[in-house]
Amino acid sequence: MDGLTETKISSKEIFNGRIVHLYVDQVKLPNGEESTREVVKHPGAVAVIAVNDEGKLLLVRQYRYPLNGIIYEIPAGKLEPGENPDDSAMRELEEETGYRCEKMKKIASFYSSPGFSDELLHIYYTDTLIKGKQNLDQDEFLEVCTVNTNEAVEMVKKCQIYDAKSVYAVQFLQLRALQ
Amino acid sequence: MDGLTETKISSKEIFNGRIVHLYVDQVKLPNGEESTREVVKHPGAVAVIAVNDEGKLLLVRQYRYPLNGIIYEIPAGKLEPGENPDDSAMRELEEETGYRCEKMKKIASFYSSPGFSDELLHIYYTDTLIKGKQNLDQDEFLEVCTVNTNEAVEMVKKCQIYDAKSVYAVQFLQLRALQ
Repeated sequence: MDGLTETKISSKEIFNGRIVHLYVDQVKLPNGEESTREVVKHPGAVAVIAVNDEGKLLLVRQYRYPLNGIIYEIPAGKLEPGENPDDSAMRELEEETGYRCEKMKKIASFYSSPGFSDELLHIYYTDTLIKGKQNLDQDEFLEVCTVNTNEAVEMVKKCQIYDAKSVYAVQFLQLRALQ
Repeated sequence: MDGLTETKISSKEIFNGRIVHLYVDQVKLPNGEESTREVVKHPGAVAVIAVNDEGKLLLVRQYRYPLNGIIYEIPAGKLEPGENPDDSAMRELEEETGYRCEKMKKIASFYSSPGFSDELLHIYYTDTLIKGKQNLDQDEFLEVCTVNTNEAVEMVKKCQIYDAKSVYAVQFLQLRALQ
């Protein structure tokens, strides 16, 4: 034993919704004691850092119900059942922004909130945009805009760009400009 | 109306646990139609980019039950009820790593996963560490280690550092070294 690993004793499904699949598990701790773990299972998600031929980043402006506010984010979405992240990134980019791309590259994957969720987010980069067709979900309302890296840095400072994947994207562009 | 905002019609509490507080709300969409929103309410969290007097980043190595794996993260934790994020960052740093600090600075706040959760994460930076006293929670098991920025960049590539806040932290240190 590594002195860190917890093992499942039992698992109880609490809720199975459109996004959130919640379990409460009883676990055995490294010291032999027991505890509970709340786990939100999530299908995973993709997000795209898409830079147009003017060197500007595509952002979507949308209302986020959990925050009760409108923020700017890079295009993103959940994986469909059985969907490959590469295909999902291509699909979400076009659905949300109306742009497709010739090629994109996966630059990172990370867990959003490993304390309570298994949501794994795959981040892609593309600068080969071509005009496609926007196709929003029935309950999805958003506006597309473009900003240069300096504007994006200012938007982070003003909490207009205010979520993990998009703040990551802005730092990625800053690093790319410096390296 | 801005054509983006959704309004709450009703709210149903599904689960109220140690971390996760889950609601399913009925909402009115900008086009007048209705939909449901699943919301994980979270008390918020803090994380600390702590650099020691050798210029090395403090990491904690811990098992994350939702991922069924051991990853390296920057020290972090949930806000206690009514706790100020500044106080929480000081407390979590010492509890997890055994180091206190003379001063720390908030460098960013961002939402972990705005599609389904209101978890807001506050990120702090300090390089004025002083020896304190580690004091882990009863069900918390972790090891502390230190790495330089190049090592941290390699750990991101190898998916050893694999969560949003810690990947952000590594980018932050890379940018700081270049600017």
